[in-house]
Amino acid sequence: MASSETNSGRATPPAGSRPDHLRIATEEAWATRDMLNLYRQMLAQGTIDDPGFKSLWGFYLSSPSPRATFIIDRLQEMGAPRIQDMDASGIDKQILMLTSPGVQVFDAPTAVAVAKSSNDELADAVRKYPTRYVGMAAVAPQNPQEAAKELERGVHQLGFKGAILNSHTLGEYLDDPKFWDIFAAAEALDVPIYLHPNSPSKGLIEPLLARGLDGAIYGFGVDTGMHLLAIITSGAFDRFPKLKIVVGHLGEALPFWLFRLDYMHRATVSSKRYDFMKPLKKKVSDYMRENVFITNSGMAWAPAIMFCQQVLGMDRVLYAMDYPYQYAPEEVQEMENSPLSVADQKKFYQTNAEQVFKL
Amino acid sequence: MASSETNSGRATPPAGSRPDHLRIATEEAWATRDMLNLYRQMLAQGTIDDPGFKSLWGFYLSSPSPRATFIIDRLQEMGAPRIQDMDASGIDKQILMLTSPGVQVFDAPTAVAVAKSSNDELADAVRKYPTRYVGMAAVAPQNPQEAAKELERGVHQLGFKGAILNSHTLGEYLDDPKFWDIFAAAEALDVPIYLHPNSPSKGLIEPLLARGLDGAIYGFGVDTGMHLLAIITSGAFDRFPKLKIVVGHLGEALPFWLFRLDYMHRATVSSKRYDFMKPLKKKVSDYMRENVFITNSGMAWAPAIMFCQQVLGMDRVLYAMDYPYQYAPEEVQEMENSPLSVADQKKFYQTNAEQVFKL
Repeated sequence: MASSETNSGRATPPAGSRPDHLRIATEEAWATRDMLNLYRQMLAQGTIDDPGFKSLWGFYLSSPSPRATFIIDRLQEMGAPRIQDMDASGIDKQILMLTSPGVQVFDAPTAVAVAKSSNDELADAVRKYPTRYVGMAAVAPQNPQEAAKELERGVHQLGFKGAILNSHTLGEYLDDPKFWDIFAAAEALDVPIYLHPNSPSKGLIEPLLARGLDGAIYGFGVDTGMHLLAIITSGAFDRFPKLKIVVGHLGEALPFWLFRLDYMHRATVSSKRYDFMKPLKKKVSDYMRENVFITNSGMAWAPAIMFCQQVLGMDRVLYAMDYPYQYAPEEVQEMENSPLSVADQKKFYQTNAEQVFKL
Repeated sequence: MASSETNSGRATPPAGSRPDHLRIATEEAWATRDMLNLYRQMLAQGTIDDPGFKSLWGFYLSSPSPRATFIIDRLQEMGAPRIQDMDASGIDKQILMLTSPGVQVFDAPTAVAVAKSSNDELADAVRKYPTRYVGMAAVAPQNPQEAAKELERGVHQLGFKGAILNSHTLGEYLDDPKFWDIFAAAEALDVPIYLHPNSPSKGLIEPLLARGLDGAIYGFGVDTGMHLLAIITSGAFDRFPKLKIVVGHLGEALPFWLFRLDYMHRATVSSKRYDFMKPLKKKVSDYMRENVFITNSGMAWAPAIMFCQQVLGMDRVLYAMDYPYQYAPEEVQEMENSPLSVADQKKFYQTNAEQVFKL
C-alpha cells in the first residue's frame, strides 16, 4: 500500500504535528535472503572460526522470540511494510546498509561476489523508493582493491552515498595499511565510510561472551570504539586528511573519553611505551571533531546526544534509529520534546545528514 | 618539611584563594617496595601468564622515561614529598589504595600475606598523617574468606574506610558468586568497595595490546566497565542491596551507555538469548544510581563530569586525581572555574566523599 504520498519523500505524519524538517535515519539495516542463507550454512556446517558471529547469528537465525523473528523478517523487507514502519515512526528517509557483519565473514571471492549482488539488489530498492531510501555500498575488505572498485561502482553507477564496513573482518581491523586502498577510494570519491559495529573479534570476546555481554549491550561498543581509536592512532587521518568516517551509537563512547584519550595518547607516545605508536599531527580529539561524524543509533537519549553535540559540535551529530534492531515508533516524537532548539533539531534530523552523505 | 600547618588537614593554599570546601582526592595510588620487588621477580622469571600485567609493569619498571620514573618513585613515597605534592595541587586528603593490580596477580598465600603487610604499612602512614591520608584495605580475592576477614581487620583495627579491588584476578571477575564473601563483608561493615581498573584480562586483550591500546588510554575502561556491568547483571546487587561500589574514570563510560544498557538488557533477557542471563529486580541504570558511586579520576574535564552529575545525580560523583599517574597540580584550580555552583563544588570535592567513605 505504497500511496503516492508515501512515495513523495515525506512520511505520513504520525500522531503529532509535522516539524519543519525532514527526519533522515542514517544507520538502518537490511539483509539479502542469499546472505542470510550463507550465514545459516556456515552455522550449520561449523565452518566459521568467529565466536561472536556464532553468538549473534546463531541467536537471530534460530530464536523463536518476537524480537528475533521481527528482526529477521524486517531485515529482508524492502517493500511496503518497511515504508509503513517508517511512516508510523515519522522517518522520511532511511540510509540503508547491509547488516553486520555483512560480507566480512566470507572467503574473499564469496565476499566480493555477495557485496556486488547485494549492492545491485539495494540499488533496485532505491530505484523503487527513490525519495525514501539512500544506499550505502557493501564492500569486501578481504580484497581491498576490489573493495575500492566496488565503492566506485556503487557511487558512480548505483548512486550510493558511501561505504558500509562492519568493524573487524575475521579479527582484522582497518588500521592495517593493507586495507587503505578503501580509505583512498572513499577520500577520492569524497564519500563517508560508515563504521558499524560487529561482535568483538576472537581475541576480544571471551569474558564478554561468557557473561552474555558480547552483543549490543556492551561488546559492540568495545570492538567498534577500539576500531575507531585504532584508525586514529594508526595515523590514517594524517595520510587521508579528508577521509570521513561515520560512527553510530554516539561514537561508541569515544566522545565521553575525549579528555583521557588526548592525555593518555600524549603520555603513551612521549614515554615511548610502544615503539610502534608514533606521534600524530593532531590530538585524538581533533580527528574526532574533524574527520568523524557520529549518529545516535541505539541511543535515543537526549542527555547523551546533547553532551556529544557540546563536545564535538552541533554539526557532527546525526540522527539514526537502528531499524529494525531498535524499532521504536514513539522515539522520534519523544526526542523532539528535548530541549534542542528548532534550528538544532533541523541539523540533527536533516541537514547534517544531507551534508555528510551529500543527499 | 611537613609543617604543623601541612599536617593540620588543610593543604597549604596553592596560587588562588581557598575555596569553602575541602578537596578530597578519592582514587590515589601507592605501592610497597616489597610488592614492586615481587613484580620485578615475576617479570624476570616469566612466571606470570597475564599479558596485561607484563605490558603494564614491564613498562613502568624498566622505562627510563620521566613519566615512568616519577610514577615509580612517587608510588612508594608516603612521607613529606607526597604531602608537598598534595599541597602544591591543593589536595587536602588522599584516599589511598594499593596500586593496580595489587596482590591480585600472586598465588593465594602470597596474596593474603602481601595484603596484610601492605595494610599494616598503610596504617602506619595514616597514623603519621591522620588528617591527610585515608586508607583502603587491600584484600586477596584469591582467598575470599581471608579477604573478608582482612577487610574486617582493616576497618575495625586499622581504621580503613573500605576495600580496594583492581578489577580481574588473573582473568576472574567478581560477578562469580565464589567471591561474594567479600561483598557480604563490605555490606555488613557498611563500607564501599573501590573497583579500580586493571589491564584487560587475557581473553580480552589481544587486539588492544597489538595496538598499544591496552592501558589507561582505552583497555582499562573496557575491562573495568565490563566488570561493573557484569556485577550488575549477575544480580549481586539484588543479593546485597546495600553494597556500595565506587568506580573511577567517571564510571568507566557506563553512565554514557545508560540508555542502551537498559534497553539491551531488557531485550536480551526477554528474548532469552542467554539462558544464564536472568531478570533483575531493577533496571541496570537503577543500580548505577543506587549502588554505584563514580569518581572523576583521570577525567579532569567539566563537560563529562557535569553529564554524569546530570544523569546519575549530584550526590553520586566524587573528585579524584589519580595521583601519581595523573599528577596535574593546576587541575584543581582549573576545574574550580567550571560552571558548577559553590554548593555543588562542595559536594563534588568534599561531602560526597565524606558520606560514601564515612570520613
